[in-house]
Amino acid sequence: MASNDFASVAMQFVQHYYNTFDTNRNGLAPLYGEASMLTFEDAQFKGVQQIMQKLNSLQFQQIRHQVIKVDSQPSVNNGILVFVTGTLMVDNEANPLKFAQVFHLQPNAQGGGYYCFNDLFRLNIG
Amino acid sequence: MASNDFASVAMQFVQHYYNTFDTNRNGLAPLYGEASMLTFEDAQFKGVQQIMQKLNSLQFQQIRHQVIKVDSQPSVNNGILVFVTGTLMVDNEANPLKFAQVFHLQPNAQGGGYYCFNDLFRLNIG
Repeated sequence: MASNDFASVAMQFVQHYYNTFDTNRNGLAPLYGEASMLTFEDAQFKGVQQIMQKLNSLQFQQIRHQVIKVDSQPSVNNGILVFVTGTLMVDNEANPLKFAQVFHLQPNAQGGGYYCFNDLFRLNIG
Repeated sequence: MASNDFASVAMQFVQHYYNTFDTNRNGLAPLYGEASMLTFEDAQFKGVQQIMQKLNSLQFQQIRHQVIKVDSQPSVNNGILVFVTGTLMVDNEANPLKFAQVFHLQPNAQGGGYYCFNDLFRLNIG
């Protein structure tokens, strides 16, 4: 991987992830695999089925992620570590919620591209 | 690694890291290696020398990290991904600063234990 490729992959992933989350949440399934883990606030989920069940269970009609910062670094096994901070606008709430999220991308075994091996999400209320 | 060992390693690492940062910053050097990377706000550093130079350059007399949440997951290559949110009290500032930090721990090549391969730090002001 060239020296700055990881940063452009990270940025593309983040744009794709939140755009899909906000418009077609089921479209996130191909970004996870059977070994993927999600920590969402204090709860843990493993594998694409558990993860998608959790993401689909979140109770709001409309959501919009606004990304503020995307940091990234190359990781082991040709992975990419991505660290996002941003705000969430949910339904008709006037006040955005601050969030932070970590994605650890790993190369797909076949077909190129990356999937999300680790995913950790936190709301930073305050 | 047993199913919950990663969480106790993560918690021990976090306690040790911030206690050392707040009392004896030079003592952090053994937690980094030559391949380690630090992203501190928008700046990038690589290797123990660059990283320690950056950490030692931070301008305050007193600092105290207060950890609010520590999330962790097993990572590839027997690593552990650690995601911390907390507050920083700096010098005589009345208002704590919110921060979030990601550590990607990897096993040491020799002697057991872990070092910090990826480190990403962000202040969440607001």
